[in-house]
Amino acid sequence: MIKPIIKTLWWEKERLYIIDQRQLPDTEKIIELKNTRDVWKAIRNLSIRGAPAIGCVAAYGAALSSLKIKTKDKKRFTETVNKDIGYLQTARPTAYNLFYTLARMKKILEDSGGVSVAELKQRLVKEAQAIYDEDIECSYKIGKNGAALVRDGMNILTHCNAGALATSGYGTALAVFFAAKVERKRFHVFVDETRPVLQGARLTAWELKKTKIPYTLICDNMAGYLMKQGKIDMVITGADRIAKNGDTANKIGTYSLAVLAKHQKVDFYIAAPYSTFDFSIKDGSFIPIEERDGDEVRKMQGKLIAPSDAPVYNPSFDITPARFIKGFITENGIIKRPGGWLRG
Amino acid sequence: MIKPIIKTLWWEKERLYIIDQRQLPDTEKIIELKNTRDVWKAIRNLSIRGAPAIGCVAAYGAALSSLKIKTKDKKRFTETVNKDIGYLQTARPTAYNLFYTLARMKKILEDSGGVSVAELKQRLVKEAQAIYDEDIECSYKIGKNGAALVRDGMNILTHCNAGALATSGYGTALAVFFAAKVERKRFHVFVDETRPVLQGARLTAWELKKTKIPYTLICDNMAGYLMKQGKIDMVITGADRIAKNGDTANKIGTYSLAVLAKHQKVDFYIAAPYSTFDFSIKDGSFIPIEERDGDEVRKMQGKLIAPSDAPVYNPSFDITPARFIKGFITENGIIKRPGGWLRG
Repeated sequence: MIKPIIKTLWWEKERLYIIDQRQLPDTEKIIELKNTRDVWKAIRNLSIRGAPAIGCVAAYGAALSSLKIKTKDKKRFTETVNKDIGYLQTARPTAYNLFYTLARMKKILEDSGGVSVAELKQRLVKEAQAIYDEDIECSYKIGKNGAALVRDGMNILTHCNAGALATSGYGTALAVFFAAKVERKRFHVFVDETRPVLQGARLTAWELKKTKIPYTLICDNMAGYLMKQGKIDMVITGADRIAKNGDTANKIGTYSLAVLAKHQKVDFYIAAPYSTFDFSIKDGSFIPIEERDGDEVRKMQGKLIAPSDAPVYNPSFDITPARFIKGFITENGIIKRPGGWLRG
Repeated sequence: MIKPIIKTLWWEKERLYIIDQRQLPDTEKIIELKNTRDVWKAIRNLSIRGAPAIGCVAAYGAALSSLKIKTKDKKRFTETVNKDIGYLQTARPTAYNLFYTLARMKKILEDSGGVSVAELKQRLVKEAQAIYDEDIECSYKIGKNGAALVRDGMNILTHCNAGALATSGYGTALAVFFAAKVERKRFHVFVDETRPVLQGARLTAWELKKTKIPYTLICDNMAGYLMKQGKIDMVITGADRIAKNGDTANKIGTYSLAVLAKHQKVDFYIAAPYSTFDFSIKDGSFIPIEERDGDEVRKMQGKLIAPSDAPVYNPSFDITPARFIKGFITENGIIKRPGGWLRG
């Protein structure tokens, strides 16, 4: 079993816990998610975020739903869990892992012919646990595979938080750094603060500090100028959804970084597990982009920083066309295009 | 006389006043700058900022210095004012207007043969007033000239604050919008919030609200995605210093916008008065780039948003190569290259 770098979420004695990421880095507060509504809210309000972490917590949410149901009537049980799964799917629209893991939970229900409700509950818990275990194993392999790209003396830029906190506990883009550190490579990470929710400043900086990886925090608008000065050798980010052709949805600002990296001839990589690839859509134009409340932009940690009635546009993600992406760092190796590796 | 849109700074009965921009948009607080040290501090701590405004307030600062001097000995008087001018020049390194206007004040001292100390004081005040008057007139002309580029239905992106608050009271990039509004053109402005000091969110949004120009506030990392969606028709920013070949220093993030605009075939303009052109340097590599305290990035309006010891890189400006700039909107018209217009 691979040990998580940070315990982002965990299941213990039929209870689900997460670290409340809205309060980091000030406070490391653990909260229990007691029911499906709690799970939905924790995803929606960003107490837990990052595509793989959302996928894991949603799967546990479906398991939790099943444990709360009193009936022994199989049909009613299945209907209720399915309804809760449908509800969890509405928590956020972009991250594919949410749909991928909940589809797996649904499949357990579908394949439950001749199984008692009690047994089915155990199967759902087991599947959620398997999803979690696979995620941490994938993260670890992504790290190992990506570490091959890291050379001594490199400066590597990352955006948002694709770390332990964005997954079951080991990361995607940051897993590469964790693995490279284990291999005793010397490198430096530049961290985009990542407005509006500041996952870079609050979460990535905190993870790198904890793991003693040298880093420098910058504002998002400084990355291009760093590249122009030749101070960035590689960019690695995570992903929220990757279409069949390789177009990738990730945190707003990723597209700009990719264009700037291309312009400055800096290699741009996406690190993501299989569960982030959506082979049902041919390109990025089919990925729904979440727009969030304008107060995320108008306020900073609750404090107003603009006119209180300022009109705001606040897309959470953007789409980076596949042609800007040098490769995808996955658990199965570094691939050029999703289509060349696995077929939908 | 052109009326300022906002009274950014003014001279009244031998006293110098500014609106404290650090407190906007919450509080419209007027402060008096009582001596050279106050002026230096107000520039350094960003109570007043924006290249033309810095130039104006520094010139008044030199005048203020002269009025405080008791001696009637011309040599001692001149030495003292010159020393204060030298001190004011150290307030910030990038904005050329600071050096341009203080050089004009120095020239008044140099050309003062046969003039009494009392008379020289009046000449210094008059020169500072002339610098202010010219600035507001230039701003107005920049607006008129730039308005010709604005077509009905356009969406125009701007970065930082190149508005009334960045000048004697009429703006450079925003002057174009003010003039276009007077001409009854219909257009929409997208405003980059402009981390770390948030001049876009705090100042530009406030100016556009005051002047009833429709706008939308975005985070800096959203601009590229807007361009990709075809939602931006033109970019106009101000400038802090323009080299002889047209390379332009402006607020950090400007370079990235210029690369993204080029990539998406969006016209990118700089609006700036003659006083921002530094014909003594052949290209942008000679422009000193100010790096400011890391707490500007680690904190947001005083509140910590990252680990308190996070290492930070905080350049205030970047250099946009001339080839990304479609034209310079100046008081003398829209020019392709500085060298083609005025020679150094």
